[in-house]
Amino acid sequence: MEIVVVGGGAGGMAAASRIKAMKPEWNVRVFEATSFVSHAPCGIPYAIEFDFPSDELMYYRPEVFVRERGIDLHLNSTVVEADRESITVRENGELRDYEWDKMVIATGASPKVPDVDGIDLQNIFTADLPPDADRIRKAAKDAENVVIIGSGYVGIEMAEAFSSLKKKVTVIEMADLPLPNFDREIGEIVKKEMERRVDLRLGERLEAFEGKERVERIITDRGEYRADLVIVGTGVKPNTELAEQVGAKIGKTGAVEVNRRMETSVKDVYAAGDVAETEHIITGKKVWIPLAPPGNKMGYVAGVNMAGGEIEFPGVLGTQITKFYDLQIGKTGLTEREAVKEGFSVKTAFITANTKVHYYPRAVKTFIKAVKDAETNRVLGAQIAGYEMVAMRTNVFSVAIQAQFTTRDLFFSDLVYAPPFTPIWDPVTVSARVLKF
Amino acid sequence: MEIVVVGGGAGGMAAASRIKAMKPEWNVRVFEATSFVSHAPCGIPYAIEFDFPSDELMYYRPEVFVRERGIDLHLNSTVVEADRESITVRENGELRDYEWDKMVIATGASPKVPDVDGIDLQNIFTADLPPDADRIRKAAKDAENVVIIGSGYVGIEMAEAFSSLKKKVTVIEMADLPLPNFDREIGEIVKKEMERRVDLRLGERLEAFEGKERVERIITDRGEYRADLVIVGTGVKPNTELAEQVGAKIGKTGAVEVNRRMETSVKDVYAAGDVAETEHIITGKKVWIPLAPPGNKMGYVAGVNMAGGEIEFPGVLGTQITKFYDLQIGKTGLTEREAVKEGFSVKTAFITANTKVHYYPRAVKTFIKAVKDAETNRVLGAQIAGYEMVAMRTNVFSVAIQAQFTTRDLFFSDLVYAPPFTPIWDPVTVSARVLKF
Repeated sequence: MEIVVVGGGAGGMAAASRIKAMKPEWNVRVFEATSFVSHAPCGIPYAIEFDFPSDELMYYRPEVFVRERGIDLHLNSTVVEADRESITVRENGELRDYEWDKMVIATGASPKVPDVDGIDLQNIFTADLPPDADRIRKAAKDAENVVIIGSGYVGIEMAEAFSSLKKKVTVIEMADLPLPNFDREIGEIVKKEMERRVDLRLGERLEAFEGKERVERIITDRGEYRADLVIVGTGVKPNTELAEQVGAKIGKTGAVEVNRRMETSVKDVYAAGDVAETEHIITGKKVWIPLAPPGNKMGYVAGVNMAGGEIEFPGVLGTQITKFYDLQIGKTGLTEREAVKEGFSVKTAFITANTKVHYYPRAVKTFIKAVKDAETNRVLGAQIAGYEMVAMRTNVFSVAIQAQFTTRDLFFSDLVYAPPFTPIWDPVTVSARVLKF
Repeated sequence: MEIVVVGGGAGGMAAASRIKAMKPEWNVRVFEATSFVSHAPCGIPYAIEFDFPSDELMYYRPEVFVRERGIDLHLNSTVVEADRESITVRENGELRDYEWDKMVIATGASPKVPDVDGIDLQNIFTADLPPDADRIRKAAKDAENVVIIGSGYVGIEMAEAFSSLKKKVTVIEMADLPLPNFDREIGEIVKKEMERRVDLRLGERLEAFEGKERVERIITDRGEYRADLVIVGTGVKPNTELAEQVGAKIGKTGAVEVNRRMETSVKDVYAAGDVAETEHIITGKKVWIPLAPPGNKMGYVAGVNMAGGEIEFPGVLGTQITKFYDLQIGKTGLTEREAVKEGFSVKTAFITANTKVHYYPRAVKTFIKAVKDAETNRVLGAQIAGYEMVAMRTNVFSVAIQAQFTTRDLFFSDLVYAPPFTPIWDPVTVSARVLKF
C-alpha cells in the first residue's frame, strides 16, 4: 500500500506515525515543503522573546520519524501537481512522480496578507513557519520601532515579545478592542493591560507601507507610524490547492470538508490539521478553527481510519489560550456574540473573583464571562482573563460544555479547595451560581 | 416558622442564609458554640505559617449574617439537649429553651484523639477550630522540636508550616508512605519531597506522650523523640450527638444519614456539612468525606428545600488538594486501591510530563496516576502530584468523571494549548491515551 502524506506539520506527522504503527508493512511517504517537521507557528513569538533558533520549534526531529517510526520523510519537497493516481513533487531541484493508494492532505494554513501598497518591502513579516522566526530574530536586532498589524493571538504575543525586548511597539487593530473574537468585557481587560506596555491603536485601518527597500513607515486611516520592522498578524487561510487538484470538496468555511473519520469527498483521500474543517460540538455546524491540539488529533484519527481502524473525531469547542505578560486569557465554547448569532436565547454572567482565600498571600484577580442557553440552562461558553490558573479553569469549562452540563451540573461539580489554591467556592462555581439554574 | 440551625460553620451558615433569602419572614436562629462563624479548619496551618490571628479564618464576619442577612445568630451557645419540639441551649451561662419547626444539624466533625498515655499534657494540639490556631501560634514561639502525628492533609500542611518557621519537625506516620489515602506512586513522590525538609518516620506507631506538665517526649514502637509541641492529625469523626438526641438515623459510615434533599430520617430535620453522609457519584454508595465545598453546598441544598424549593445534592467524588512547599497533590474519584475494593476491574496509567512545551522556560514536572474501569473504559479517578496547575488539572478530571467520560471522551476533550501553559498534548490527554480506549 502506497500512502502519501502532504505536509509534515502536527496533523500530517500524527497521521503518518499512526499508519506506520498500525501497518508497518505499508510504505508511508511524507512530503514537507520546509526542512522542518512537527512544527507549529505558535512558538514563533517565543523564539523571538527568548531568542532561540527555529530548530527548537520542532516537537520531534526528523530522525525520530525516519529511524524510530520508519517513515519515508521527504524534506524540502513541494508537491506541484496531483491527481487521483499520482503526485508530482519537486525535490532536490527535480520533479518526481509518486503513485498513491491513500492520501492525507495536511497542507495547513498560511497567513492572510493585506493587499496594500508596500507589502513587499523588506522587514515586513508574517509568523507562519520556523524559518520566519529566524528572519524576524535577525531583523529585530537593529529594529527600534516595531509595528504589529492585528491584535489576535499572533499580535498580542508578538507585542509581548518585542516589548520585553525593549522595542517601541505599536499595535494597529481595526476593531475597537484587542482580541476581537472575545466579548467586550474581556477585550476591555486586555486593552488596559496592553496600554501599559505598548502604543495600542484601536479602530484604525492599515492603508499602506512606505519605505525605500526596507519598510520605514506605516500609513493608517488615522495617522502614520515609524516602523523598522512589521509583523502582520491578520489571520490565516487554509491551503486548499492540493485538495482542489484531487477534486476534494471545499466546505462553506473555505477549508476542506471532511466527515468525522476525516475522509474528504474523494475516496481514500483524508484531510487533517489546519487545512480541514471540523464540527462544532455545540452547534453541530461545520467550522474552521485551526488550532494545534485538534489538528494533531485529526491526524491521529485519519491515520487510525486509514490503517483499518474505526474512530471518529467528535469536533471542537474552539478552546484556546494566550497571554500578554502576566495576563492570561482563555476561551472555550461560544462567546455571547457567537451564541446570539447562532440563535440562542442567552443569559450571561461576568464575575470578578480572587484566586485564593482572603487570608492566603498573593491572591490575584480572575474575571469570567460565562454564557448559558436561557431555555435549557446549558452552559455554552466561557471566557476567562486573569493572573493565574486561567488555562486549566478554561479546561474545566471545556469539559463541562463537552459533557452538555447545565449550570446546575456545573454548580455541583466537585472541585478542589484548599487555601493556597482557590477560594472555598471556585470562580467556576460562582459563575454557575450567578448564571442561575 | 421557627428554624434552628445548630452549628455556624460553612454548612450551617449556607443553610441559614438560603432560608432567610427565600423566606425573609421566617425566624432563623443559628447556635454556634464558638465566637466564630463560617470558619473552616483548613486555614489553621496557614495561620501558623503566615502568623495571622484566628479571626481571619472566618469567611464572613458575624455582622454580615446578622445585619445583612437578618439571621438571629447566637454565638458561644452550646446546645445541651434536644427533642423533636425544642432544644435547650447554654448561652451567657444560662440555659434557655427554643421551640423549633424545622432544624438543620450542622454540627461538623471533631478530631479523633489517640487513646495513649500523656494525651492530656500541655502543648498537644489538634487543628479543629479557629481558637486552636491562636493557641498553637502562641505555643510555637518557644518550641524548638515539633512532632506531628499523622501525615494526612493536616499533617503535611502543619509539617510545611513549622518547617518554614525553622522548627525541627518530626512526622510520625503509621503507614509506610505519607498521604495514605493516595496510591503508592504518589505517596513515593510526597515522601521524597518531605524527607528533604522534615524527619519523616514511616511505619511507626505512637505509644505515649511523656512530660511533666508540658509534653517533652513522644514514644513510638521504634524510638523516642523530643517534643516541645505536638500536633495530632489522625483524622476526624462526625459530631452526631444532636442527631442522636432527635432520633435521626446514623448511617454505616458513622455520619448522619441523609437523602439527596439533605433530609434525615426525622421529618423536618436536615443535616449538612461535615456531620452528614453523602453519596459517591461513581459507586452510588453512601460515603463520609468531610470537605468544605460539598459541605457548603449541602447547606445550600438543605436551605433551599427547607424554604420550599426543590433541589438535590448529587454527591461527591472526594475531590481534594493539598501541598507541601512547592509540591501540589490532588485527587478525585477512586484511587486504584479504592476501585479494586469496589469490585472494578481496573487498568491504570502513571505518567510523568512536563507542564510546558520543551522550548518554553520554567517547565516543571507533573505526575498523573489515572484509573479506568477496564470493562467500560470509564474514567474512575486521578491523582496528580506536580509543581504547578495541579488544582485545575484535578478539576478537569473531576468534571470528566462526573460526566461519566470514557478514556476516549477524555482523549478528545478540547483542551487549551499555548507554549507558556501546556505541552501540545496536555498531560490529561496523554494519560487518557496511555489508559487506552
